[in-house]
Amino acid sequence: MNNLSTHFVDAALCSSLKIIRALYEELNLFEEKGVGFGGDRSLNIDLIAERILVEKLSEFGNILSEEAGFIDNGKDKTIIIDPIDGSYNVANNIPYFGTSIYLEDTASVVVNLSNGDYFIRDENGKKFDNLFRKPFHATFKHDVILFEKAYQNPEIVKKLNDNGLKFRAPGALSLSLSYGESSKAVIYKGEIREFDIAAAKFYNKDCFWHFEDDLIVMSPKYEYLEKVVNIIKE
Amino acid sequence: MNNLSTHFVDAALCSSLKIIRALYEELNLFEEKGVGFGGDRSLNIDLIAERILVEKLSEFGNILSEEAGFIDNGKDKTIIIDPIDGSYNVANNIPYFGTSIYLEDTASVVVNLSNGDYFIRDENGKKFDNLFRKPFHATFKHDVILFEKAYQNPEIVKKLNDNGLKFRAPGALSLSLSYGESSKAVIYKGEIREFDIAAAKFYNKDCFWHFEDDLIVMSPKYEYLEKVVNIIKE
Repeated sequence: MNNLSTHFVDAALCSSLKIIRALYEELNLFEEKGVGFGGDRSLNIDLIAERILVEKLSEFGNILSEEAGFIDNGKDKTIIIDPIDGSYNVANNIPYFGTSIYLEDTASVVVNLSNGDYFIRDENGKKFDNLFRKPFHATFKHDVILFEKAYQNPEIVKKLNDNGLKFRAPGALSLSLSYGESSKAVIYKGEIREFDIAAAKFYNKDCFWHFEDDLIVMSPKYEYLEKVVNIIKE
Repeated sequence: MNNLSTHFVDAALCSSLKIIRALYEELNLFEEKGVGFGGDRSLNIDLIAERILVEKLSEFGNILSEEAGFIDNGKDKTIIIDPIDGSYNVANNIPYFGTSIYLEDTASVVVNLSNGDYFIRDENGKKFDNLFRKPFHATFKHDVILFEKAYQNPEIVKKLNDNGLKFRAPGALSLSLSYGESSKAVIYKGEIREFDIAAAKFYNKDCFWHFEDDLIVMSPKYEYLEKVVNIIKE
């Protein structure tokens, strides 16, 4: 079984490339197609991306998807996918949107469809790379917070500002929870759904996580996690 | 003189490619180098990018740069540059940072160094394209606001939320003022500096702008601009 996760990761990356191509080739990407299983509006691009993933990944497991819900392929394991994380961003030409794919207990793949950055974890550990070019590696400064759903949480915005903390709110949770290994912390306050977080949680399982009702805080350093959680709960 | 802006745009895009290469090749990118002319901390990467731009662009004009201030090349026109817009993002591996270049009354070039998207305006009009691949074009939905410096303005965050408006706060003003042609509006509240806005203001001069003390609001539609300004001033 040593090769399962390698084959799965290959198939997931290949699907992501196909989704990127679809973004440039398909028409009517942002036509609204009702509300998906996860409760968000589905756009045509969400369904196109889901079709590509279901086709390429069904041999590896059942699929639980944000758009279609559970697809029983008669397998032992389930793959949790968010075909397009950050649909609102794609639809407004904001370059921060991704695909999030998790094969339970085995492997995860999160791809930034806008620039090709990807995050994988399989039996070889974790890796940050890029589909198209050399990955950008450095000793990052960890002095900015990624805050998803900041727009619904003005009281937390105020607390962070009172404590002199800068944040960005880029708008795609699985990407932020993955990139978060290089930032100070990631904050999310809103309904927690497995589609959005499963892959990144597996990728960054070596980071520090705080889960509580509708709140997630994650940080690469325990002291930052503690500080940010304390500020939020002041 | 018909060719000046074409040559200038070529030189600016070429410099951007060189800066992207430097991001992958230079060492100690994020070493702190004191405070630049514009008042922000300067990192090594800011100075490397500035050096590349000054070398390639000095034949076209004097240079006013965020890091070095005014460089007199004995020319009639001045070029306003922000070598790295979004330094905090680069230093935290947040994929939204750019280069902003404006030759007064003549041409502007804003490049997203993370994914190659670029925005130019010259005597041929405006153009959105990408350095590496087909540009991503579509009929965008204009239903998300880009809000720069949201972290310092919790009271505006609250007003937007009370009015049911979603925002993103990605952290690079010249990029947001350029991408903003596809969003609902762009909001910036903070100290206004020419380095940050000159190129994007020229690029999106066909959009609607509101300037007031330390506030900028821009929108591709007048009705959105009016609505957002009214909400902020409630």
